[in-house]
Amino acid sequence: MKLYGYWRSSASYRIRLALTLKGMAYESVSTDLLEGAQFSDGFSAMNPQQLVPVLEVSDGVHISQSQAILDYLEAAHGGKRLLPQEPIARAQAMAFGAAIACEIHPLGNVRVQKYVGQTYGVGRDGGQKWAAHWITKGFDALEVTAQQRKTPFLFGEQPGYAECFLIPQVYNAVRYGVAMDAYPTLSDINAKTLAWPGVAGAMPEA
Amino acid sequence: MKLYGYWRSSASYRIRLALTLKGMAYESVSTDLLEGAQFSDGFSAMNPQQLVPVLEVSDGVHISQSQAILDYLEAAHGGKRLLPQEPIARAQAMAFGAAIACEIHPLGNVRVQKYVGQTYGVGRDGGQKWAAHWITKGFDALEVTAQQRKTPFLFGEQPGYAECFLIPQVYNAVRYGVAMDAYPTLSDINAKTLAWPGVAGAMPEA
Repeated sequence: MKLYGYWRSSASYRIRLALTLKGMAYESVSTDLLEGAQFSDGFSAMNPQQLVPVLEVSDGVHISQSQAILDYLEAAHGGKRLLPQEPIARAQAMAFGAAIACEIHPLGNVRVQKYVGQTYGVGRDGGQKWAAHWITKGFDALEVTAQQRKTPFLFGEQPGYAECFLIPQVYNAVRYGVAMDAYPTLSDINAKTLAWPGVAGAMPEA
Repeated sequence: MKLYGYWRSSASYRIRLALTLKGMAYESVSTDLLEGAQFSDGFSAMNPQQLVPVLEVSDGVHISQSQAILDYLEAAHGGKRLLPQEPIARAQAMAFGAAIACEIHPLGNVRVQKYVGQTYGVGRDGGQKWAAHWITKGFDALEVTAQQRKTPFLFGEQPGYAECFLIPQVYNAVRYGVAMDAYPTLSDINAKTLAWPGVAGAMPEA
């Protein structure tokens, strides 16, 4: 399996975490978003959305969108399970991930920040302020949800599906100046996950 | 099962479509977003994100986020399957849905339109123009993906998971003045799905 991603892409980071937590080997291919590699004909043929990550399952067979890639890894491959098996808990873990993947991350995506900065004349700082606004709004709600959980990690004894979404979003939050001390539970889960065996190797800087 | 939704909410419409296509009965509870019913204590206790839809599985047990609700319905309930069983096709159908649920819909959400209009002084028209921009960008890519499919509907012989996301997004596209004739394949799938037995009853106006 080949993972087309970018070190700083939050959605790519989710998949690196998932593969690490599942204990699966993969080949990593960097798609340099700053150089516009995602707009090349080759990349567009794999994913017309011109977004990372893309998982190459085999020659010419690609899966885009981090949630779909995670579903594939969970459904088709061995390794540690990242989702609870009971359908309600499973859906609640997915909902936690989706709250980040749908309500927070797309709004703060670099391409959206750029569009905000340029279209409304608020520049790069304005784009980052915009991103921080939606992270704050989303984390306010997720902190409540996280506090209600009764397990060491969000949905169990070990980091799993929900952590694959949380950790990259905390990374972005810090990057855009969101004060994480307002979110003690999310911060605690983040710290414990970063300290989990192997996880350091999945981090953007690694 | 109780579905807390709102007639014009695109994400609620997804679940109404899914329940209809699966042939499942449910009780519908309207949460009036215009009156701010989603900010009430009662609703916030069910979903701290203060967003519809929310599925009440049983007393005090709730699932938020449309993708997670669909996963639960597909995993735990009978009725017609909406996702292909083969893991790659399944993930590709989910990716089609996620491209709408993550890259298009959250950007054009009414709360985001309002924030854009107010924060950047572009008003309601500016907010709708913003929404139309992201729908256009997303549909440009999804039309390519849809053209590559070889089945009458996106991922099979009948409307399924991907159509549950596409149809509400086309409804919004028309609402915000996106010219759908640029998307012949998406328009065709949309028309065929709307003509499918039972689907009329799931539409916002119904």
